[in-house]
Amino acid sequence: MILYTMPHAPNPRRVIIFAAEKNIELAHVNVDLRNREHKSAEFIRRNPSGKIPVLELEDGTCIAESIAISRYLESLKPEPNLFGRTALETAQIEMHHRFIELELFSQVGISWVNGPIIAASGLIDPIAGVKARSDFFVNAYYQRLHEELAEREYIAGDRFTIADITAFCCIEFAITLVDLKPPKELVNLWQWHGRLAERKSVKNT
Amino acid sequence: MILYTMPHAPNPRRVIIFAAEKNIELAHVNVDLRNREHKSAEFIRRNPSGKIPVLELEDGTCIAESIAISRYLESLKPEPNLFGRTALETAQIEMHHRFIELELFSQVGISWVNGPIIAASGLIDPIAGVKARSDFFVNAYYQRLHEELAEREYIAGDRFTIADITAFCCIEFAITLVDLKPPKELVNLWQWHGRLAERKSVKNT
Repeated sequence: MILYTMPHAPNPRRVIIFAAEKNIELAHVNVDLRNREHKSAEFIRRNPSGKIPVLELEDGTCIAESIAISRYLESLKPEPNLFGRTALETAQIEMHHRFIELELFSQVGISWVNGPIIAASGLIDPIAGVKARSDFFVNAYYQRLHEELAEREYIAGDRFTIADITAFCCIEFAITLVDLKPPKELVNLWQWHGRLAERKSVKNT
Repeated sequence: MILYTMPHAPNPRRVIIFAAEKNIELAHVNVDLRNREHKSAEFIRRNPSGKIPVLELEDGTCIAESIAISRYLESLKPEPNLFGRTALETAQIEMHHRFIELELFSQVGISWVNGPIIAASGLIDPIAGVKARSDFFVNAYYQRLHEELAEREYIAGDRFTIADITAFCCIEFAITLVDLKPPKELVNLWQWHGRLAERKSVKNT
């Protein structure tokens, strides 16, 4: 299986960590985002949304979207389980995962799209006031995570799941490319971050 | 099981249609969004994000997020299948579902939050230029759906799935409350909309 990816991109990283947790080997092919390769006719045949990551199967079938790919990999190799075992646990992991995606990752994305790197690229004109608002929501969510992580070790409960992978890749992206580092006072959030950073799947990818 | 909901809200409607497809009965309790009941301390205990829908189980356990709830209902009653059967079909449905959520529904949401109804409520000040941009993305996505629905009958392939429920509730919300009606020239999109509107689960809810 081939993973279309690019170093440092947060969404492909989710899949790379997920596959490492499962000990699944994927061949990597880098997509040249700077030269808009992801919007080329050839790439659009792999993903009509023109985004990475994409997983290409042996027969050429392509699956886009990091969570669709991760769910496929979970079906191929169910252990270690990362999406939940029982009906209730699966629903709770999905709930926490969606909180992260819809309330944190989406706001980090808005700050990124309206921030200085994209502005300098000339691709999108930032709209005044948008980044300040999304920055505010990101920081409010960091505070919420700090409070929630006083009660439990991981994002969705007492074990590592897909929700941790998404939250970690999101926060790493926010720190390194969007200049949104969680304040050091949010010690529970930073302790969780440290636990994640120590995992073999994270250190080696 | 109790569903915390509110008439005309698009996300609870997803769960209501999903449950109707499965013939699962849910007791409905309306949450008074206008008086901010969803942000009350009592409601925050059910969902820390302060949003509807929430499903409360017999033992008081609460599940928030429409897709987490739907997945729980699918586990309780697997047929008719709406999330996919094989590993590949499940991944493809998830991929199409995410396209709708991330590229259409999120933009409709931005247009809603920055539109006249929310502005009149005084809850959030709209930011100039934001709605015009999200309206543009919504209309571009309508065009994409029109083209894709020339090739297949439903959003994720040749059968009705969770992706159709999400797309339908999103577009109904866009039409009725965000003033974003797909142009009538997009005949494939409108034919699909007609097929959905005829379903018993949609007509009766």
